[in-house]
Amino acid sequence: MKEVFNFNAGPAALPAAVMRQAQAEFVDYKGCGYGIIEESHRAPQFDEIIQAAEANLRTLMGISEEYDVLFLQGGASLQFAMIPMNIALPGHKIGFCNTGEWSSKAMKEASILGAEIELLYDGAANGFSRIEGIEAWEVPQNLAYLHICANNTIYGTQYKQFPKTGQVPLVCDMSSDIMSRQVDVNKFGLIFAGAQKNIGPAGLTLVIIRKDLLQRVPEGLPTMLRYTTHCKSKSLFNTPPTFAIYMLRLISDWLIELGGIEAMQKINDKKAALLYDYVDGSGYYRGTADKASRSNMNVCFRLPNEELEKQFVKEAKEAGLIGLKGHRAVGGCRASIYNAVPQKGVERLVEFMQQFAAKN
Amino acid sequence: MKEVFNFNAGPAALPAAVMRQAQAEFVDYKGCGYGIIEESHRAPQFDEIIQAAEANLRTLMGISEEYDVLFLQGGASLQFAMIPMNIALPGHKIGFCNTGEWSSKAMKEASILGAEIELLYDGAANGFSRIEGIEAWEVPQNLAYLHICANNTIYGTQYKQFPKTGQVPLVCDMSSDIMSRQVDVNKFGLIFAGAQKNIGPAGLTLVIIRKDLLQRVPEGLPTMLRYTTHCKSKSLFNTPPTFAIYMLRLISDWLIELGGIEAMQKINDKKAALLYDYVDGSGYYRGTADKASRSNMNVCFRLPNEELEKQFVKEAKEAGLIGLKGHRAVGGCRASIYNAVPQKGVERLVEFMQQFAAKN
Repeated sequence: MKEVFNFNAGPAALPAAVMRQAQAEFVDYKGCGYGIIEESHRAPQFDEIIQAAEANLRTLMGISEEYDVLFLQGGASLQFAMIPMNIALPGHKIGFCNTGEWSSKAMKEASILGAEIELLYDGAANGFSRIEGIEAWEVPQNLAYLHICANNTIYGTQYKQFPKTGQVPLVCDMSSDIMSRQVDVNKFGLIFAGAQKNIGPAGLTLVIIRKDLLQRVPEGLPTMLRYTTHCKSKSLFNTPPTFAIYMLRLISDWLIELGGIEAMQKINDKKAALLYDYVDGSGYYRGTADKASRSNMNVCFRLPNEELEKQFVKEAKEAGLIGLKGHRAVGGCRASIYNAVPQKGVERLVEFMQQFAAKN
Repeated sequence: MKEVFNFNAGPAALPAAVMRQAQAEFVDYKGCGYGIIEESHRAPQFDEIIQAAEANLRTLMGISEEYDVLFLQGGASLQFAMIPMNIALPGHKIGFCNTGEWSSKAMKEASILGAEIELLYDGAANGFSRIEGIEAWEVPQNLAYLHICANNTIYGTQYKQFPKTGQVPLVCDMSSDIMSRQVDVNKFGLIFAGAQKNIGPAGLTLVIIRKDLLQRVPEGLPTMLRYTTHCKSKSLFNTPPTFAIYMLRLISDWLIELGGIEAMQKINDKKAALLYDYVDGSGYYRGTADKASRSNMNVCFRLPNEELEKQFVKEAKEAGLIGLKGHRAVGGCRASIYNAVPQKGVERLVEFMQQFAAKN
């Protein structure tokens, strides 16, 4: 098996040890004679898994009993609609900070559902290259909630601090940096994340919701679109994506063994510093996000021209470094260095970048 | 590895050959150096998979270009809401035939969304033990559509013919018998199925929709809940459940190799006949569904008393025959013999049933 490092933006690399374990027990889970993917979601074997997954998340993120932890489907994109459906308040605006595509899309869904939007910050003016002035943002206290996106995968920006919202619940899309850094969950009303970047495979969506917000859920919503349905049934109202939850459990086991999110964050900081330091000093590559806002997960950079960028992506792939093409909306190059991408992968990438710059 | 036969009602057994192939390439898909579960949904590797999955389904089921084939999330339960959201018609009732829990749940969601229901058939009167008089059902031609559930997993009943609906689109929940028997897709307006019984793992929902029905999709629906969104983007509006789609592709390859649905149906008929014939003649076990309506997928039966049923399920498990407990709503025993359960498994079950009856 050739050594490959996977810089995909999502679905993305999963921890190598987890992949090997899942493979080893794929057709015979713990000697039961069949795979966990074939097990009933009502069976004790799966019950142990979903409970362990939740317990691991609570331990890792410090999630108190004031919050419910839900394992849903449909991705962050379905949450863009479910959130206003469930926790908007009649007669109150919803606040948004627009830091790129994902917050724009969330805003669009709130509008479709008839909500009035209060745009507190619009990064369009600076081409979404930074998230600035957060400490000065004033959040009107009559908003139903404030929606932000913690990390923008396309522009490679990340909130380095979170806005103070007072009484207004802070709703945060953490799809692309959840469990990559320490976060005080108690500061949020609702956290959600598609799993396929840092915590699992595609097809699983994590929602962490403060229980008092459940009182807002209006009558008349379809059963599957009500958070209360999934809270009451512990995510087992209907068949959940069992294999993805099993993978999340293994990944959270792996994180705990590694030393938890504190240890993970140190590794992530080191990986990002290595790559950014090289880019900054290279005189060849150019980072696209402002230094103060740049993401530790998605490192976006340009080469001297588009021709060279194409060649870079192609030659990198041949060298076993895959997924380095930037998002089609912005072009350029992007290295997504989520939790599962090892330090060694980033070192190999920097070596390759040095060689490529020297040759071209 | 011990030999186990899995009679789970879903998630359920997957074909042994598919499980072995998925295991073999789990960490290294076709020599690329990483797993398909880690691949981007925009990468050529995955594009080949989703296209092959759709092509296989079109071949196996004879789906014409008049229909779109969608790979969604949320299970049949989300479809219970999405269908009326998308294809109800203002001022027209929606027709339902209630053959048990799944059609009841679908009816409830249509009501929540404000639709008026026309109940064409109510199996509650006979305890859902049969689906009778189908050929005599008269379908009012002003219904928006008629919703039926092809196979009821809980009561072990199955439509042996489908109602004639004239101009009214027939909407069918085929979650538990899709691709287990030949069906003329052209008779349906919309077919949907959670994958986790016959065609894949949990977390994937198949929707086959006749294109003319897309004209009904109203303005104002959230983007993720509009069929048109997923038709336009070929199920890639957001990240789909990539690994589940990969498994569906392998399973559909396996079905084609086996000789297609015609061959599969013969095997399924044989498996069901073996089990029902034994139950009928045993003088010990008692089938719960009426013969004319009984399911080739879920064989429900009782023992002389509940004590013996408990003992049966326990001893069967020890003998490597798992998942035989009936649904909690009805009790008793149930053997789900979906496509992936081999003839040998049913033979083994019958042997065990003979031994158990002789001893008890």
